[in-house]
Amino acid sequence: MPEPLRLGVAGLGTVGIGTVKIVQQHAALIQRRTGRPIVITAVSARNRTKNRDADLSCYAWEDDPVALARRDDIDVFVELMGGADGSALDATRAAIATGKDVVTANKAMLALHGQALAEAAEAKGHVIRFEAAVAGGIPVVKALTEGLAGNDIRRVMGVMNGTCNYILTRMESAGLPYAEVFEEARQLGYLEADPNLDVGGIDAGHKLSLLAAIAFGTRVSFDAVRLEGIGRVSIDDIRRAADMGYRIKLLGVAQMTGRGLEQRMTPCLVPADSPLGQLQGGTNMVVIEGDSVGQIVLRGAGAGAGPTASAVMSDVIEIARGSRIPTFGQPATDLVEAVPAGTSAPAPHYLRLELADKPGALAKVATVLGEEGVSIDRMRQYAHADATVAPVLIVTHKTARDAIDHALSRLPATGVLIGEPVAIRIESV
Amino acid sequence: MPEPLRLGVAGLGTVGIGTVKIVQQHAALIQRRTGRPIVITAVSARNRTKNRDADLSCYAWEDDPVALARRDDIDVFVELMGGADGSALDATRAAIATGKDVVTANKAMLALHGQALAEAAEAKGHVIRFEAAVAGGIPVVKALTEGLAGNDIRRVMGVMNGTCNYILTRMESAGLPYAEVFEEARQLGYLEADPNLDVGGIDAGHKLSLLAAIAFGTRVSFDAVRLEGIGRVSIDDIRRAADMGYRIKLLGVAQMTGRGLEQRMTPCLVPADSPLGQLQGGTNMVVIEGDSVGQIVLRGAGAGAGPTASAVMSDVIEIARGSRIPTFGQPATDLVEAVPAGTSAPAPHYLRLELADKPGALAKVATVLGEEGVSIDRMRQYAHADATVAPVLIVTHKTARDAIDHALSRLPATGVLIGEPVAIRIESV
Repeated sequence: MPEPLRLGVAGLGTVGIGTVKIVQQHAALIQRRTGRPIVITAVSARNRTKNRDADLSCYAWEDDPVALARRDDIDVFVELMGGADGSALDATRAAIATGKDVVTANKAMLALHGQALAEAAEAKGHVIRFEAAVAGGIPVVKALTEGLAGNDIRRVMGVMNGTCNYILTRMESAGLPYAEVFEEARQLGYLEADPNLDVGGIDAGHKLSLLAAIAFGTRVSFDAVRLEGIGRVSIDDIRRAADMGYRIKLLGVAQMTGRGLEQRMTPCLVPADSPLGQLQGGTNMVVIEGDSVGQIVLRGAGAGAGPTASAVMSDVIEIARGSRIPTFGQPATDLVEAVPAGTSAPAPHYLRLELADKPGALAKVATVLGEEGVSIDRMRQYAHADATVAPVLIVTHKTARDAIDHALSRLPATGVLIGEPVAIRIESV
Repeated sequence: MPEPLRLGVAGLGTVGIGTVKIVQQHAALIQRRTGRPIVITAVSARNRTKNRDADLSCYAWEDDPVALARRDDIDVFVELMGGADGSALDATRAAIATGKDVVTANKAMLALHGQALAEAAEAKGHVIRFEAAVAGGIPVVKALTEGLAGNDIRRVMGVMNGTCNYILTRMESAGLPYAEVFEEARQLGYLEADPNLDVGGIDAGHKLSLLAAIAFGTRVSFDAVRLEGIGRVSIDDIRRAADMGYRIKLLGVAQMTGRGLEQRMTPCLVPADSPLGQLQGGTNMVVIEGDSVGQIVLRGAGAGAGPTASAVMSDVIEIARGSRIPTFGQPATDLVEAVPAGTSAPAPHYLRLELADKPGALAKVATVLGEEGVSIDRMRQYAHADATVAPVLIVTHKTARDAIDHALSRLPATGVLIGEPVAIRIESV
């Protein structure tokens, strides 16, 4: 009889309980697949008496996750508490210090401390795995680290926050403004306690920074992710973009360019008929482009007890099978410090301007754009309820963002601009 | 300096040369990712003097792949010759007999001999990996075997023959009949030497049978795959299906049911706005459904030198990293013989009938359908250039295929049926 792999599970929220249930319900299946039993030895959570939808009576209980991490009757510390610092970090450090492998769903902790944790674990010959930290049940960390390991990765893109995608698609389908759908989402319990983690793009930015480290062999540099949330996306822009054949997504993009590593998590337009454009509701999608493989698209549930626990168990099973791949796909000490790209690669942009409806207004704007090197691919002028205002949509040719911003900054001086102009990048997918 | 992993590459067609190029061009990258160099020691192909787009001068040459497989200066035998039997099988057996790991892109060989080969390899502690055999560059074998290993797999579906999908989407977009697009595909070099491997669904059926073995822990049973090619799909049906919101795909489905293991590779209707329905051209897509993860969709290039070589290298890299997962995700000797499901799970069906345009014709048909327990969800009658013919489309409620076939067999006796009725399953995706 082979030795069982013994887990200590810290954090018994939906994902923790989901993980416990898979271990309990699929014990035989998992043993067939790994060749050894996987058992839970001990668990930990803040509140022992809380009613949980699983039988935990046969596991040792620890109030303190650090004590759990230090137990010598566990082989793998499964960290499902969350939070970049505090208990999760303390306990993970304790697990590494006492020679455990670690499986975690904690994107924030890894985005901020992943380099140090990986170095510490690898120095002791242990592994940290985090499939559940990125895009829920989609096996994207595995696809990137292993499935596409023969590729020079060119670009990683993704819609990796289901709440934002829910809000944006609901705005479009129901024709509702951001504030109203945000409130709906809050009432449905879709938002983090600090909603800015979702709608500010921070959570998705954490995930992107982890994928970028694997893809480009660079140290995780979340600080260098250009973050822009969805709070300023208007229903007008969603509608106008749709008229032009696009949808607006909170899109993460990481690519290595001649100017350095570009990482951004910002609202972008994507073609409505592309896989990313067609992604509705809370589903996640990650697109990986490699020099040999071309474009691979992965789609699935990005959150929820089942999908996230599925990813946790995939990591546990890999450890049980003996996989010892380093955290970020190569030894942490070999990861290089990326030079952050100061600016984004040039791209077409969507511009929405409201102009005074008088002769020559458009000419003045076009002149400024031309002078700043912003060339126009397509343009539409719309009727407006208020006859003194002429909404104008422009799709530019490939242009650096700086040139767009500079051109927009000159528009007020034309005297024909009404309100704030809107500029959104169009990502070619 | 760690020991290099030494490859012997048999077969120097596009995939073989693609693999050689990755080894040559990404040596440093791959070494960073695996911790050891990966080198090619020897190669083999039928024609040594053929002009190939790669420098092979530093590799030993073997005319005979069996001799290559037996060399004691290789660790991994990379089989890229193709063909279910003959040299590929002989050489793979020789590689296993002489203690090599095997990486292969050969779906036909594994579909027919995978069980015996896996048992032989595993008895000696060696592995066979075949990511490249299924859906080209998409890391689907890895996703199923490892990424979703904590799931009870409920269903695996896929469009896994790019040529068929090209033909079907080209028929729709150009409005051309099957025979014409088939001829185009032949001239473009998209078809196998024996085109029935593609359009008869055999190649895709091979792939499905391999995924089913992993998903359900069963012995590969290609013989039990219900195969129906695309040769009888008409442009009429493609158009009518589109009218009803569907597209026709050569869709593989494997699922474990109360009646046994159901495996089929047949034309099916899928909703036009689903990921499968939106799949255009030669791209492949695999959909995996697990009890915890829900639905995961994987999309990418299903063929071509780069994507297939990417998959080959992913397997090589996993071996270099020390992965020893059994061929089908659990020891071959543990795989169970599946009872094949005699019939498919009930599903809605699309029926196209041409009726004599006279009073009572539709009533007669509806009566027969009703008597056979085929209940109608939607129906449309179309005008026809020939006023004596009334084309009728029917979407049924969930019905067993047997009931459909039985009802259709009774229609000639009504005296109102013109020509052959068409019935195509609608798969809920």
